Amino acid sequence: MRILALDIGGSFIKYGFFEGKKLKHIGKIKTKKRREEFKDQIKGIIKGFKFDALSLAIPYPYDAKRDLWSPPNFPFRNFKLKNFLKQLGKFKIFIQNDANLAALAEAKARGIANLVLLTLGTGLGSGVIINSKLYIGNSYASEIGHSIIVKNGLTCSCGNKGCAEAYISVRALQRYYGKEISIEKLASLARKRDKKAKKAFEIFADYLAILLSNIANIFNPELIVLSGGLTHFGDLFLKQAVKKFGSMAFKQTRCKIEISKLSDLAGVYGALFYALEH
Amino acid sequence: MRILALDIGGSFIKYGFFEGKKLKHIGKIKTKKRREEFKDQIKGIIKGFKFDALSLAIPYPYDAKRDLWSPPNFPFRNFKLKNFLKQLGKFKIFIQNDANLAALAEAKARGIANLVLLTLGTGLGSGVIINSKLYIGNSYASEIGHSIIVKNGLTCSCGNKGCAEAYISVRALQRYYGKEISIEKLASLARKRDKKAKKAFEIFADYLAILLSNIANIFNPELIVLSGGLTHFGDLFLKQAVKKFGSMAFKQTRCKIEISKLSDLAGVYGALFYALEH
Repeated sequence: MRILALDIGGSFIKYGFFEGKKLKHIGKIKTKKRREEFKDQIKGIIKGFKFDALSLAIPYPYDAKRDLWSPPNFPFRNFKLKNFLKQLGKFKIFIQNDANLAALAEAKARGIANLVLLTLGTGLGSGVIINSKLYIGNSYASEIGHSIIVKNGLTCSCGNKGCAEAYISVRALQRYYGKEISIEKLASLARKRDKKAKKAFEIFADYLAILLSNIANIFNPELIVLSGGLTHFGDLFLKQAVKKFGSMAFKQTRCKIEISKLSDLAGVYGALFYALEH
Repeated sequence: MRILALDIGGSFIKYGFFEGKKLKHIGKIKTKKRREEFKDQIKGIIKGFKFDALSLAIPYPYDAKRDLWSPPNFPFRNFKLKNFLKQLGKFKIFIQNDANLAALAEAKARGIANLVLLTLGTGLGSGVIINSKLYIGNSYASEIGHSIIVKNGLTCSCGNKGCAEAYISVRALQRYYGKEISIEKLASLARKRDKKAKKAFEIFADYLAILLSNIANIFNPELIVLSGGLTHFGDLFLKQAVKKFGSMAFKQTRCKIEISKLSDLAGVYGALFYALEH
């Protein structure tokens, strides 16, 4: 089977063309944000290959029932994604959450049966692999980032109060620092031992430790994988978070914590594995 | 296969003798708390039947590797449970957490593939069923009661701060009321519209709603089942908890919340199903 796997992110579209599991071509282009330009971009990529299945890793929310896609960080809402893709040729179409697919890819690449993945970035995504399969509940994917860790806490992007995402994300780091600043800048300051910047990453690490401990006590997976843009600055928070995690999670846990191995390509490989399994 | 299924609780030992799935005999006796008396009790039950497998639902912690059982609400610690049972005859032995087995029983009885069960009592136990199977992580069972919902919150029985169990349990209710009081008495006061007693159940409901919402967002199961002694007083907190849950969990969730159907017999049936599947 020939599969074209696309990972559609707010900044880049990455794509891989596979024959079976064999990678034949890989590409990466900047994501166009306007609806028509974006559609042309996708068309352009698809025209370049002959394939049996198209598999997409996308940021949610996507309403599969009504085929309505409202990606964050894009100016368009309620885009009929599957309907649009169907018009481009005769192939099977798979659409799945990018964090879920990243989790699937990490589990396959490492040969691990039970794994939880967190994407640390603008938001806080998650994917759960149980018995080597992507876990999807009743209707939508696992949203660990929207579990409440602070009762009556800060208002989250989802409208609730005290969700993990409100404390473990780029926006949270900026809040801890006290003003809007690029994460690259904030990290650079922290590495130069700026007190306020260091403190911001320390607070971040404390909250991350709580979430890691909750995941260990709830799922007790073999491994928690951290991925996403913020892992590039792992030197500023990971050691502290893992140490605090160790003091909080049940002693019997043998759950390890590691940074993503596939990083940039997790979405593409996840989309591949997802298509192969369905 | 003939199976003797025992549910060992702090107050009662319940047991069922099955041929296949067919219940042939059921019994219930008060649990003796002293180690030797307790051992005699178990011996007494076992002698009454001829069976191929003995399956036990027990309160944790149980260290399966080293065969050390340290049940809460019992005065003995580090009891070599499996070793003791082995000496009583030639049969297969299964030992599993009571909340886990209650979850398994509810899932089987209802024909539901993805389900989370909470036991509301002295502590806050949990069991998770995924794809019709009991989910056990890396080494121990799912411990949702020890996920943190209040950063730097109250100290929990496990030593951590802010665990759900510290806010959603008999002890928590007593704390909200302000003094030690039996739950029966507290419930009776609340039903007579005593303000302080009513308030205690309201606070309880608020925290329960947070945990239910977290479970829905993390697992999004078809159903969350509430079991345990406190469900007898569900009229005092369930309606409020479910309403708040509805306003907090993702709108797309179709996760329902119900009281246990098997109640008293969930442990026994869970032990049966567990033995049949292994």
